[in-house]
Amino acid sequence: MTGTKTISLNADIGESFGAWVMGADELIMPHIDCANVACGFHAADPLTMSRTLQLAKEHKVSVGAHPSYPDLVGFGRRHMACSAEEVTAMVQYQVGALQALAAGRQMSVDYVKPHGALYNDMLSDGNTFDAICEAIKALQRDDQVPLMIMATPHNQAWRKRAEEHGVTLIFEGFADRAYDDNGHLRSRQYSDAVFQNDEQIIEQAQRFNNGEKIKSVNGELLDIQIDSLCVHGDNPQAISTIKHIRSLLTKNPESNNQ
Amino acid sequence: MTGTKTISLNADIGESFGAWVMGADELIMPHIDCANVACGFHAADPLTMSRTLQLAKEHKVSVGAHPSYPDLVGFGRRHMACSAEEVTAMVQYQVGALQALAAGRQMSVDYVKPHGALYNDMLSDGNTFDAICEAIKALQRDDQVPLMIMATPHNQAWRKRAEEHGVTLIFEGFADRAYDDNGHLRSRQYSDAVFQNDEQIIEQAQRFNNGEKIKSVNGELLDIQIDSLCVHGDNPQAISTIKHIRSLLTKNPESNNQ
Amino acid sequence: MTGTKTISLNADIGESFGAWVMGADELIMPHIDCANVACGFHAADPLTMSRTLQLAKEHKVSVGAHPSYPDLVGFGRRHMACSAEEVTAMVQYQVGALQALAAGRQMSVDYVKPHGALYNDMLSDGNTFDAICEAIKALQRDDQVPLMIMATPHNQAWRKRAEEHGVTLIFEGFADRAYDDNGHLRSRQYSDAVFQNDEQIIEQAQRFNNGEKIKSVNGELLDIQIDSLCVHGDNPQAISTIKHIRSLLTKNPESNNQ
Amino acid sequence: MTGTKTISLNADIGESFGAWVMGADELIMPHIDCANVACGFHAADPLTMSRTLQLAKEHKVSVGAHPSYPDLVGFGRRHMACSAEEVTAMVQYQVGALQALAAGRQMSVDYVKPHGALYNDMLSDGNTFDAICEAIKALQRDDQVPLMIMATPHNQAWRKRAEEHGVTLIFEGFADRAYDDNGHLRSRQYSDAVFQNDEQIIEQAQRFNNGEKIKSVNGELLDIQIDSLCVHGDNPQAISTIKHIRSLLTKNPESNNQ
Repeated sequence: MTGTKTISLNADIGESFGAWVMGADELIMPHIDCANVACGFHAADPLTMSRTLQLAKEHKVSVGAHPSYPDLVGFGRRHMACSAEEVTAMVQYQVGALQALAAGRQMSVDYVKPHGALYNDMLSDGNTFDAICEAIKALQRDDQVPLMIMATPHNQAWRKRAEEHGVTLIFEGFADRAYDDNGHLRSRQYSDAVFQNDEQIIEQAQRFNNGEKIKSVNGELLDIQIDSLCVHGDNPQAISTIKHIRSLLTKNPESNNQ
Repeated sequence: MTGTKTISLNADIGESFGAWVMGADELIMPHIDCANVACGFHAADPLTMSRTLQLAKEHKVSVGAHPSYPDLVGFGRRHMACSAEEVTAMVQYQVGALQALAAGRQMSVDYVKPHGALYNDMLSDGNTFDAICEAIKALQRDDQVPLMIMATPHNQAWRKRAEEHGVTLIFEGFADRAYDDNGHLRSRQYSDAVFQNDEQIIEQAQRFNNGEKIKSVNGELLDIQIDSLCVHGDNPQAISTIKHIRSLLTKNPESNNQ
Repeated sequence: MTGTKTISLNADIGESFGAWVMGADELIMPHIDCANVACGFHAADPLTMSRTLQLAKEHKVSVGAHPSYPDLVGFGRRHMACSAEEVTAMVQYQVGALQALAAGRQMSVDYVKPHGALYNDMLSDGNTFDAICEAIKALQRDDQVPLMIMATPHNQAWRKRAEEHGVTLIFEGFADRAYDDNGHLRSRQYSDAVFQNDEQIIEQAQRFNNGEKIKSVNGELLDIQIDSLCVHGDNPQAISTIKHIRSLLTKNPESNNQ
Repeated sequence: MTGTKTISLNADIGESFGAWVMGADELIMPHIDCANVACGFHAADPLTMSRTLQLAKEHKVSVGAHPSYPDLVGFGRRHMACSAEEVTAMVQYQVGALQALAAGRQMSVDYVKPHGALYNDMLSDGNTFDAICEAIKALQRDDQVPLMIMATPHNQAWRKRAEEHGVTLIFEGFADRAYDDNGHLRSRQYSDAVFQNDEQIIEQAQRFNNGEKIKSVNGELLDIQIDSLCVHGDNPQAISTIKHIRSLLTKNPESNNQ
């Protein structure tokens, strides 16, 4: 994920909880490079996490921690007013829990991608971003543990802010989401926020992969450079689209670990 | 804690939760060697854990993880039928969470002591004991992370079983609890299960410290060798007793880390 | 449900939780008489409960409360050592919560059926049974709120014990579960505990409906009289079986309310 | 609480949770008229609620439900973005739970006072206010269940809005909190937000009781009419102040039920 121009595919994985199943992890895992694994605060429990790691290992998929605000019933999608100290502690707690479960399988946690409202707050609130960086900085032993955030035309400013904490960034784009003229994701309150047809999804993936500019909802051309592409898939049709995107990216098929 | 005959003092610490305060951590921390820190399943939350670690660091107290069944409202005191796989996963999750928070303060988790019903089940159910050992084995990096369990006349058998998992044991005794003739803690259903007067508590502590036999409720003499003595204290009187016990043990006052 | 010989069909409903969907409530609701609605302790949240009630209302299905031990991650299937006072309080809490949500839709809670481990404990531990009866007794205003329990050859003894609390019973049988020679459900540890083919399920349903004796796993004939038949269905095949059973029972198709 | 000019004293009660104790309920209960009882979402559990009701009964204290957002670790003090439908459901759930526990002791829930962030959101967001009123409207059987909200100079507008839902209001003032010039509580970010000396507390209580204008932090005179006065007390000094306030109000000492 450093140096080469190969773009990885990432997906949110391991979002089942106790007796409840969510997602089609077995179907999607063979086609992705990086699994963002839920850590028990918005989804998953220790046993689910353990089994998700096993599945990732079987498919040689790199594992990232997917920490969240503590809100199971709201699936971590609701902003919660937490202090910076609290955010740092809850990120360390969740990443550490996953690290220990990974260590139990001779695996490691390769990056951190905050989930849901915490992901959004990180992008809109500098204090939250800093608090998350502080958490990650403290977690790093011998290796860097990069932070995955949303790519925008302003990657460089984010990169600089993260570097001040000693943290590197992975920038991700979204294959199936429309972008506003300012390079942010189109709000879900608009009906055109999520692409419904495969052609659009695949075209956007191709543009990201080729380093071409992305078209905003109003036709503006946006320079958004990404390291990883986030895909979603919980049904056969979506999996088929992911496989198509996969085929676009595999110039370098051997290296599906970051 | 290895080789020398110095006995450490341990106590359950960090059992507050959100807005609720429990215990008198500031009062007891100066007098103990090892803090069994709650990990969020029976008590504590990430912020509480973070602050508890800070307090332990200030007093140079060794930190152990105190994992539990997931039961906040029952304070982890109720047996829950969990599979071995689930126990392993929940112990790794909780210890890993504490390890990450400790790493954030240049601290480490030096041992694991299961809490409440999980502690009792470990002693009465071999599968639970093995599942906990498997969790700990996987958590060990360069250093051993010993498991703290109850000392009985049968330490050697437990030591051997743990060694099969590559895990070492710390045996603990209780200063303020009566023992049955078979060397187990007197059940709390009996009114004489917990010592009420200081003299009894201090006498038992002294016997443990001197390597003398302990007197059971019926006057039997029990050979129970311990590495650590568990104390409880959430009021000035109890703290005073702990200080007294502390003075008995400090043949080797410099080494209050394990 | 009293007097006439018509047997009702009941099913566990409303077991989704937050973002997690469980069951096929829309598919099964048209074919049942009584919905055992989860109350937030093993499944469901207030909004899920509210929507489940709406669905039940549309299909004129009678609503029962389905209270549980507090164990979301274990889906209420694990025994938890709770005092009688605690069981009474948790049952009142959950039934009351559902009653209020029902009142908001001009509906009522017509009966109580404990869930999972609480259901099993009620049958094996008289104190738990009494604690649940005490909870229900206190909940009754003008109308009886019966307690649904498992029918066995010993219904009369249970009926008498419940009457001492002023509580009436609904006895339920299971269409798709094998019975032991003593009239209890065959333990799930045996491979023949759950019927796999429709013919067996429908035959047993028919025997219950006709008041005939039920065959145990060893061919013993058991006299088990039921008021209600519990069915399970979360796939089209299972729904088809339920429709078949439904057709057997509808001697009195108008009255699908209790 | 209707018609007569007697002002009641209310306090937040029953905020313990499992093994954690909060507040000094036994000390404060003898001196108040109305107990705002936590319902399990920010504090309390079914058993705690049951015991709190018993204590209220012994002191002939009127009981109100104190529902909250679902946030134990944050004690319900954090805003959570919930839909109106969700707010209505969660209020009904909690009030209903308390109603059932009260019914078990031949008691009733006499009013509803939202807690923490839900209380604040109700005052700042009309949709939340309406959602709460809808919940209460549906809960009312034969008797009104009033909603307790903060008294301001604009009581009449709130009263009108509540009436459109068929809900009556109880307006409460705060003895120990400073008011801004616009008649709202002084934000806690200012050091003078909470009165520290008894004289100030008692003077403000007296002004409320006499129907006199209240002095804002800047000396403005505010016309704030109240039905109930909220007091806090978890230590002997605070209890002593409450007793003093109590003596001011008791023109009508017999009627300490609403």
